[in-house]
Amino acid sequence: MFNKVLIANRGDVALRIHRACREMGIKTVAVHSTADADAMHVRLADESVCIGPPPARDSYLNIPAILSAAAVTHADAIHPGVGFLSENAAFAEIVEAHGITFIGPSPSHIQSMGDKITAKRTMIELGIPCVPGSKGPVEGLDAARAEAAHIGYPVLIKAAAGGGGRGMKVAEGPENLDEAYTMARRESAAAFGNDSVYMERYLGRPRHIEIQIAADSHGNVIHLGERDCSIQRRHQKVIEEAPSPALTQAEREAIGKRAVEAIQKMGYRSLGTLEFLYENGEFFFIEMNTRLQVEHPITEAITGVDLVRMQIEIAAGRPLGMEQKDVTFTGHAIECRITAEDPRTFQPRPGRIDDYHQPGGLGVRVDSALYAGYSVPPHYDSLVAKLIVHGRNREECLMRTERALGEYVIGGIPTTIPLHAELMRAPVFRSGDYHIRWLESDYLKS
Amino acid sequence: MFNKVLIANRGDVALRIHRACREMGIKTVAVHSTADADAMHVRLADESVCIGPPPARDSYLNIPAILSAAAVTHADAIHPGVGFLSENAAFAEIVEAHGITFIGPSPSHIQSMGDKITAKRTMIELGIPCVPGSKGPVEGLDAARAEAAHIGYPVLIKAAAGGGGRGMKVAEGPENLDEAYTMARRESAAAFGNDSVYMERYLGRPRHIEIQIAADSHGNVIHLGERDCSIQRRHQKVIEEAPSPALTQAEREAIGKRAVEAIQKMGYRSLGTLEFLYENGEFFFIEMNTRLQVEHPITEAITGVDLVRMQIEIAAGRPLGMEQKDVTFTGHAIECRITAEDPRTFQPRPGRIDDYHQPGGLGVRVDSALYAGYSVPPHYDSLVAKLIVHGRNREECLMRTERALGEYVIGGIPTTIPLHAELMRAPVFRSGDYHIRWLESDYLKS
Repeated sequence: MFNKVLIANRGDVALRIHRACREMGIKTVAVHSTADADAMHVRLADESVCIGPPPARDSYLNIPAILSAAAVTHADAIHPGVGFLSENAAFAEIVEAHGITFIGPSPSHIQSMGDKITAKRTMIELGIPCVPGSKGPVEGLDAARAEAAHIGYPVLIKAAAGGGGRGMKVAEGPENLDEAYTMARRESAAAFGNDSVYMERYLGRPRHIEIQIAADSHGNVIHLGERDCSIQRRHQKVIEEAPSPALTQAEREAIGKRAVEAIQKMGYRSLGTLEFLYENGEFFFIEMNTRLQVEHPITEAITGVDLVRMQIEIAAGRPLGMEQKDVTFTGHAIECRITAEDPRTFQPRPGRIDDYHQPGGLGVRVDSALYAGYSVPPHYDSLVAKLIVHGRNREECLMRTERALGEYVIGGIPTTIPLHAELMRAPVFRSGDYHIRWLESDYLKS
Repeated sequence: MFNKVLIANRGDVALRIHRACREMGIKTVAVHSTADADAMHVRLADESVCIGPPPARDSYLNIPAILSAAAVTHADAIHPGVGFLSENAAFAEIVEAHGITFIGPSPSHIQSMGDKITAKRTMIELGIPCVPGSKGPVEGLDAARAEAAHIGYPVLIKAAAGGGGRGMKVAEGPENLDEAYTMARRESAAAFGNDSVYMERYLGRPRHIEIQIAADSHGNVIHLGERDCSIQRRHQKVIEEAPSPALTQAEREAIGKRAVEAIQKMGYRSLGTLEFLYENGEFFFIEMNTRLQVEHPITEAITGVDLVRMQIEIAAGRPLGMEQKDVTFTGHAIECRITAEDPRTFQPRPGRIDDYHQPGGLGVRVDSALYAGYSVPPHYDSLVAKLIVHGRNREECLMRTERALGEYVIGGIPTTIPLHAELMRAPVFRSGDYHIRWLESDYLKS
């Protein structure tokens, strides 16, 4: 097992990894920007190294600085966390070239799944159903029109290099295809420096359902069930739950089995998530994330498995230590992503936390690096806390989440706690019958 | 189901009950002393009523004041919590006489189990093994000598009305029986206004193992496994764990089955705990608690059952909703009782909390009514927080508990957090091979 892990991340993600290491008896090195000198992950780590100023490109994305920090502290592994360099194949490659273990998959898998067109092509070959769409980038208006007619309207035009909703446009019919295509390319170029786009069927009321898998270097692959991440705003997940209120046990097992088979054929090694859209009993692969997901704790809650520990053990060459039949699901879990934003306008509102009190009691977990007196810096993502609640069933979980949100005090800055509390009482959310556009198009507009 | 529950308690116990009620959609009434006006349970309850000044006899033990609070708020049930009036049969009777449901067993069961001699006699009749001892109070030195010879040395002389170690003396052999007997009676009289004592075999290195049972008003009885509460100081539990590192699966099932049978024959209804001493594979009943236990959360952690919710549902006449075969045990749980005491001298150190930060992350639960700015009043028990940690196995649980203790900040007053952290690293505790006198006689003296 590793002696010392450098955590190339910040905030609650860094804290999550620190906790797993501490519980495994592994020393931790925190790296931080000048804006994060007082951060919780820095305070708790065994050692810390300042790697530059904000913004992230000068510190958390600064590969030479991170490698120097690893060298000077003699870290034998680097955990990239979520975001930042976690899906950067070049980083993984450089880390390994320095004789340090990258806690994640091989650079080639990061690379192939990072490119959405390659990922989709690979998954189709591996028998995973995808949204009907173009086989590759669609070049020019004529090709786009032909492709759209073939796929069937409505169609979605999507940046090949993209993410987070940028470079995505919908054409409801032939009459607005030209404009949507042109705008998608223009946005892609601006956001990613690459105007390559692809096209696919646009689903009207799909759910976002993703399958957590884990694969070790001994050929063992398991899935840990699904997460339903359909409560979204601007393509960002807001609330996740597991299991999905929409799936039957047979659907769960079937999609899990297909995911495991595909991962096995790929020779993939590490944690990974296959993301699907789900509509009318059909799954359509959208992308694979080759890293830990923000919403991993709900899977931990219903399976009892420590996913970060498992990820570290896999990277150290250990076997999974469990087979598919050992994965059992107990109860229901919900995660609320609490952001430092105005709960009505969603404007980020960083600032000083003058009062902080976490909820407690049965079934309540908080993953947050906030503390009283801490100032949320303006340079990073506005996610400041994850509230994860487990109950014996969905109803108990909903009631408990509402109870816990009512106890949570984050004073000094506005947060989205009131929105989450409202959602726990919203009849559509309570019914479980919602889709990925419900929050933004129906709930927030009403 | 009840519409509104009055919680006749304070601190983290009141908060625990409030949380269960809130999650069940039941309104709560907090009662509080003048010293507790700013307490967390008062802040979170739907309504609150001041019932008098400290000490407890003028407020939390003031039956007319509590009944008036229930009347004025139209509470339809009273939860007595732990301590205070929770094992007061007269209180339960008066509550019921006022047409309010007492959330607990019938007054007659509180009465019969509250008297330790009656309890022991009842249990022997019901087939539960007890420590060899006197059949009733032992009156006079001659009787004491004869009884001790019959039981076999070492013998323990114990107050019939007692608890918490007061009125308890050990005679290692005939040469110190007279003194031990005389002192036990004198202490009993002083502490409880009753000098009745009984005698029993003194066990040298026993463990304290207790069985959690639940019985509804429809004749269903289950047990929820055992808790090992052998880490004690002055007969007060300091750390509890479940399952016990000492029991085999066969022993667990056998004692659970016997407990269930006894409870069934008694016609008991509510939660209850049968406490045993355990030595060399043998169980000896010591007492039954007819209320919620402070350490109930470790059972909740390994079974997934919300015991307070179950207790409320039983009181409302609902069936348990589960059978023995539905009770499954997952992983390992540890509870640390954190007190506002000097960790070396155990002197209570109430005072103002100037900084407060609860640990979080996977498997960590905190039950505490503390918050930054709160002043721990000097009038009550020094227990201020319960840290409950769950892991897939005992080793993971130990590591996680140590990790969580390291994150816990209670600033402004000394607490026993450092002692708990030390114990998590202590080889004897880690080995699981300890007994009820180990902490006090071996560890703290070394």
